[in-house]
This record gives sequence, C-alpha cells and structure tokens, in this order.
Amino acid sequence: MKRVKATVAYDGTNFAGYQFQPGIRTVQSEIDKALVKVHKDKSIYSVASGRTDAGVHANGQVIHFDTPLSLPADRWIMALNVLLPKDIRVVGAEYVDESFHARYSATGKTYIFKWSYSEVQSPFERNYAVHLGRWRPDVQLMREAAEQIIGTHDFTSFCSSKTATSNKVRTVRQLTLEKQGHLLIMTIEGDGFLYNMVRTIAGMLLAVGIGWNTPADIQKILESCDRKKAGKTAPAHGLYLDSVTYD
Amino acid sequence: MKRVKATVAYDGTNFAGYQFQPGIRTVQSEIDKALVKVHKDKSIYSVASGRTDAGVHANGQVIHFDTPLSLPADRWIMALNVLLPKDIRVVGAEYVDESFHARYSATGKTYIFKWSYSEVQSPFERNYAVHLGRWRPDVQLMREAAEQIIGTHDFTSFCSSKTATSNKVRTVRQLTLEKQGHLLIMTIEGDGFLYNMVRTIAGMLLAVGIGWNTPADIQKILESCDRKKAGKTAPAHGLYLDSVTYD
Repeated sequence: MKRVKATVAYDGTNFAGYQFQPGIRTVQSEIDKALVKVHKDKSIYSVASGRTDAGVHANGQVIHFDTPLSLPADRWIMALNVLLPKDIRVVGAEYVDESFHARYSATGKTYIFKWSYSEVQSPFERNYAVHLGRWRPDVQLMREAAEQIIGTHDFTSFCSSKTATSNKVRTVRQLTLEKQGHLLIMTIEGDGFLYNMVRTIAGMLLAVGIGWNTPADIQKILESCDRKKAGKTAPAHGLYLDSVTYD
Repeated sequence: MKRVKATVAYDGTNFAGYQFQPGIRTVQSEIDKALVKVHKDKSIYSVASGRTDAGVHANGQVIHFDTPLSLPADRWIMALNVLLPKDIRVVGAEYVDESFHARYSATGKTYIFKWSYSEVQSPFERNYAVHLGRWRPDVQLMREAAEQIIGTHDFTSFCSSKTATSNKVRTVRQLTLEKQGHLLIMTIEGDGFLYNMVRTIAGMLLAVGIGWNTPADIQKILESCDRKKAGKTAPAHGLYLDSVTYD
C-alpha cells in the first residue's frame, strides 16, 4: 500500500459539511465514493486534516488515503476528478511516507473569511461572502482587536460550547484584515482551531468594527473563558479553509 | 401609473431561463411574484429587454413595469430585493417616461462569455465559466476570426435554426477577446442578437482558436446562411447579459 496526500477544493454550499453522515451529501462521502470506484469497490477511506461545517468552503483541504494502485502521482488528480461532482475538485496529489497523517501531521492551518461591502449583494457572491448590508465597519479598530487575539491563549470564549476537546489553548500566529475591491478579507493562521473558533473570531472582530465592542474588550473576553461573552458566530458561507501546512 | 426602469442581475444557474413558464422557476416568474406582493396582490407584470436561456447569467438585464405606487425611485431596489430570492438582485431603479420600453427602446446589448484556462476547474467557477480542459486556443487567431464577424451581416448561420424572426440581419459593433488571469473573456456588443447567436459565435471563435476552422472560414460560413456550417453552440453557463443600452 502506498499513501497519497491530496489537496482538495470544494464549494461547501450544497454539502451538509465535510464529515461523513449516512444518507446525507457530505464532502467526505463523495470523496470516499470516488475512492471506492477507482479501487473497483474495495473500501478505501480518506482521512482529512479536519472537518468543515455545512456551507464552509475549501481552497486547500488536505486528505490522505492508502492505495494498492500505482498510478503516477499526478494521475490521481484526473482519476478522482472524473468521478467527483463538480463542486469538489482534487487540485494536487503526491505520494508521501506512511508516517504522514493529514490530521496529526498538520502543523498549521490558514482560514480566510470574506465580507462584502457592495451596496446590493451580488447574486454571484451570495454563497461566497457575507454581505455587510449597511454596516461599514472601522477596519482599523478590527486590526487593533486582531492584535489582541494573536498569540497563545485559552480560546474557550471563542469556540462553540459544544467543543469536545479539553485543551482549549491554541496559538494564532497571524491575523490580518485587508480590503480588496468591495471585499473585506480576514486571514488567520494558527497551529489549530477549535470548533467554530474562526467564525467566532470573525464575528467578534466585526462587532468591534461596528462599535458593539472595543479592541480592549478582547483581552477581558479571552480571560473570562465564557463563550457567551464573545457574541455572534459569523455565518458559514464567508469561511474558506485556505491551506494546511506540514513540516 | 408611473413607469419604472430597473436593472437586474441574476445567477442563471438555478433558473429554467428568463421567461415565464407556468409552474417552473424562471427569473421573470420570481420578479413578477415580487411585483404582485409589493402591490398587495394587484397583477403587475414586468417587460424585459429580452429573454436569456437556462443557465445564462445577467449583470445588467433591464426591465420595466408600471406602478400606481409612488416610492422614491431608489426605494424600489430594496422593496423588491427583500422579496426576491438571493440569486436575483435589483441593482438600479429609476422612473422613466411612459414611452420607454425595455425591449423596443433598446438600441444595443453587450454580452460577455467566459472560458477558464485553469489546470483543474475551480469548484467556485463551475457554473460561471466554461472550462477549456486541455485546450489552449490561439487567441490571436480568435481575434482574426472576430474581425470577420464585426459589421452588418445576415447571421442565419450563427443562430438557432429555431429562430422565429425572419430578418436575420444584425450589426455587431464590437467583438473583443481578452485574457484576464486564468480567464479568457469575449465581449460582444451589437444592436441586437438572434436566438443563440452569442453562444454560436463563441463556439465558432473557439473552433478557430483550437484549429478546427480558420479565420477565413468565417466569411464563407456567413455567406452560406446555413446554421450547420458554424459548428457547436458554446454552453450557456459561460454567458452573461452584461448591459442593455438605450439612447
């Protein structure tokens, strides 16, 4: 058996999230269906770097799977894409050592969150960026708040109360906000993220940008270890798993 | 009654085209439903500059309708958008003289056609650009072919054989091809277009770009007045009604 590492992009709009659920359209179900077909009905399962929620997109999700086949590495791209629905595309594939694990070997992840400033929301962006309506957030204030989030913290206040993991200390290495045309784009990079953590941070930064909170509130909210303090989770459809890094 | 001219954008993916069809989701049905609601169940119907096919998008379709209401012109944008599905957006509205007619007053239309060159088709573009796969068309040859199409011609060879109109003479005033990142974009402007004319021209230019035809073939095909000579109609999802002009 040889281990394949594949990079996968998907439009999360029409999926009930990444993870397999019986009888429901998920990204993993579609990928595993394609793997089973390529392997002539042998059960081959993929392992991803982590799940994404319903509506969340990916530019560079990473998976691995083990195969008895010996296709040239880049042939895996086409072999899987002909079997996958068009809202999932394998964009890269390579053979890796069997010590590689899409989830456990990951040393960092980058997520992107997109808001749209346009007067009227473009019908072409309705599933791909969160429309700000009449809000015009102060990006400088959002950047000041972001500075408070960067670093190693207990992120209990910034993840779903349903988070199962007991250790909620994570390190955010980079957190930037940039205007690109009519879009406001948050990019966040860290060693790992708790359930709903990126969307909670996005919601919190927006709350600062529109004056519901101040940048100084961030430290207090972090210290409180109380999810209720951090306010609204931003909608799923603005979020993209952009890339996963491995050493 | 006052006449409103409105500019409408839509993502054509989930519509069976523009025109009303009973029991089927079309752009016109949704717009007229919203108009009836705004007018408290009074029947108010819209007239568009023309239809678009299933899957075809619009950045700037133009419609008109007559109303007894006296909202400030720009309030029509929000009044309709709160009632419309998110894949249709009214992006502009103004009161016009009752001599204005969205279809008969139009003096020109601009369409855009998008192809994508990316190695693997982006899942986010699957409904918005036609993927060229392994084809790498010669854009210079396509431009030479485009030069033959510009002007006033009988476009019988370049429209659906189902076209009802008897006068098939049209004037193409502008026809350009430009690379923008991984996209190849055709922009065509003319006084009016026959059924499937833009998609037939797009298909013909691509045929020239990949060497199935030569630029010199275009004149012969125009002169033949035979639809079968012009080859394949390009897929609907690459096409956008970009704007409609009025004097």
